[in-house]
Amino acid sequence: MWNYKTPGIPDEFFERTEKVPITKEEVRTIQLSKARLTVGQIIYDIGCGSGSISIEAALQVENTGKVIAIDYDSNAIELTKKNIEKFGVSNISVIFGNAKEKILELEKADAIFIGGTGGDTKEIVELSQNKLKSGGRIVIAIILIETLYSVLQILDKLKFDSVDITQVTISKSKKTTKGTMMLARNPVTIISATKV
Amino acid sequence: MWNYKTPGIPDEFFERTEKVPITKEEVRTIQLSKARLTVGQIIYDIGCGSGSISIEAALQVENTGKVIAIDYDSNAIELTKKNIEKFGVSNISVIFGNAKEKILELEKADAIFIGGTGGDTKEIVELSQNKLKSGGRIVIAIILIETLYSVLQILDKLKFDSVDITQVTISKSKKTTKGTMMLARNPVTIISATKV
Amino acid sequence: MWNYKTPGIPDEFFERTEKVPITKEEVRTIQLSKARLTVGQIIYDIGCGSGSISIEAALQVENTGKVIAIDYDSNAIELTKKNIEKFGVSNISVIFGNAKEKILELEKADAIFIGGTGGDTKEIVELSQNKLKSGGRIVIAIILIETLYSVLQILDKLKFDSVDITQVTISKSKKTTKGTMMLARNPVTIISATKV
Amino acid sequence: MWNYKTPGIPDEFFERTEKVPITKEEVRTIQLSKARLTVGQIIYDIGCGSGSISIEAALQVENTGKVIAIDYDSNAIELTKKNIEKFGVSNISVIFGNAKEKILELEKADAIFIGGTGGDTKEIVELSQNKLKSGGRIVIAIILIETLYSVLQILDKLKFDSVDITQVTISKSKKTTKGTMMLARNPVTIISATKV
Repeated sequence: MWNYKTPGIPDEFFERTEKVPITKEEVRTIQLSKARLTVGQIIYDIGCGSGSISIEAALQVENTGKVIAIDYDSNAIELTKKNIEKFGVSNISVIFGNAKEKILELEKADAIFIGGTGGDTKEIVELSQNKLKSGGRIVIAIILIETLYSVLQILDKLKFDSVDITQVTISKSKKTTKGTMMLARNPVTIISATKV
Repeated sequence: MWNYKTPGIPDEFFERTEKVPITKEEVRTIQLSKARLTVGQIIYDIGCGSGSISIEAALQVENTGKVIAIDYDSNAIELTKKNIEKFGVSNISVIFGNAKEKILELEKADAIFIGGTGGDTKEIVELSQNKLKSGGRIVIAIILIETLYSVLQILDKLKFDSVDITQVTISKSKKTTKGTMMLARNPVTIISATKV
Repeated sequence: MWNYKTPGIPDEFFERTEKVPITKEEVRTIQLSKARLTVGQIIYDIGCGSGSISIEAALQVENTGKVIAIDYDSNAIELTKKNIEKFGVSNISVIFGNAKEKILELEKADAIFIGGTGGDTKEIVELSQNKLKSGGRIVIAIILIETLYSVLQILDKLKFDSVDITQVTISKSKKTTKGTMMLARNPVTIISATKV
Repeated sequence: MWNYKTPGIPDEFFERTEKVPITKEEVRTIQLSKARLTVGQIIYDIGCGSGSISIEAALQVENTGKVIAIDYDSNAIELTKKNIEKFGVSNISVIFGNAKEKILELEKADAIFIGGTGGDTKEIVELSQNKLKSGGRIVIAIILIETLYSVLQILDKLKFDSVDITQVTISKSKKTTKGTMMLARNPVTIISATKV
């Protein structure tokens, strides 16, 4: 289905629905790069949405690694399962439910992706600290000003190092009969850090 | 209707239709500022669209000045007329037709606004050079890459000075139940210059 | 010195020093437009910096109006005074000191500009509520994420209406020997609102 | 030196000099993703600069693959060699000279990266068409308006498919004593396409 090593599978290769937003390929690529993935790792994808990050992470960590995809939206769970089938990956476990409860039982992670527009990003970052192995990476995608602020506040208090805050604004071209215009997408802020 | 001296009338104060795009208030404000308007001036608004720039310019040049609004889209002409009525300004002439022909007959201008997504921006810039008084200002709003390039090329050959190229990207907040997100609008490039 | 009605005096017309940042003309233009100025008004410019907003506001409110420029940085006060002299405006009072104390004694305002990167923007917004006339406008320019968050929080609790949050990103062209590149400036968020 | 599978090596891991600009890690990550690399491929990196793309591509194509790095700036060649040594990769050939001549002699490529601010990007794109295998990928990073235009024009005439035009604007956070501000970097436009 996808035979390349580099992440950044085009959005249109994924099953999509109007109910579940997909992380756009360029933003997703940066998130994956910030996670510094390698073969054999254990990855959480919290607020997995369409499952696009889970799929890409699963391809990177290969079959000796594992991705755990969590969402509290049943539409997201269903869509993630469809994409798992479409891409034929076998190393993703899908969990339907509240991440704040579900991750407590999980084995420790090498990298944790936190996405979605949920209001409890701050709490999930706090919990993630305990679930990350030392040297593990956390990658948080944020679109709300309030979430950005609360994550900045909490990161200062937690045991994270090498905190990087990158705002990404992507515009895509659109051909009209008269020429090429650029259509802006909404900015996403990606915060990444290393567990001490 | 609008009792303030500063330009930047909120978009929602104008009559609008889906058929005719309106220059957003923040971009419009910058365009007006680049034109350096004053009382008594003659202004062209080429590709007047909703008429929002014409209205604001008419308020700035006052009744001893005059705005000539031109568009080849009858929807734009109709909408401009509605806005003229709504704001009760009496110093705007509206011309329906091809600017390339229509401006030839006009009296000379102190400032010329060129907007719209038409493919003939370059030719209109060339013609505008002859219709501008010495020291007059040209202000061009561009969204197409090809238009941007062609205007840059032609400006080098014409008698314009103090060329300024400013790309403006505006994001507006949107409150969701979970917080405040920023919605990006498409970037607009504003080129302004002084006729030598 | 400046004979135009529209705001947006080019930055290079102002006295500048490296010690005091100047609000860039395009951002300043939008701030002025959001303040909805008119003749005869009383304006505060809190964190006046170079004085560029004070000068433009003073020109808009004319001699029956008045601008009160405040800064706790003596370099800013000195530079503002130089610019007042340069532009020959006589309706600006300059106050050196802490805005939180100084504004308590002032007459009520029609519009209040709040700038600077000070950490006490939130408190100044609270105080400004009491100093604004009913229907008066507040315009806040913000570059820090923490300030943006705290202002959003406090605005919800105060008596402000028609809150508008606009992020402005300006890029300016630079000609190189090989072509024209766009240089990005840092984004500024402008919050404006009407006192109920 | 770098043990991760995902591209996006942090900029500070590379040797850098003031004389040679480095493609920033987030932009580089997107470029690599658009190239769709895999083991065993032949890659050109035209205008290799610091060599950061060459290094990352070399790690992705592994030792059965090969990267050919070309630059006409001796500082770039020197820096690329330093980075090759630093990262200990053995599958990069470095060529000092004019890409328009040098690529004529090379074996066919699976992917071609074109960077730099050179004025001859258009010609190199034309030549690249003949050097790419069918199904091969071209990835062009552009910062000049004139180059963007000329590449758009030529791509229409060449045998490329799935043309994607993505403008990427990255802002990075900076902590000040008073809070966190975002510093904007200049936008880069990445054009990618598949050789038919």
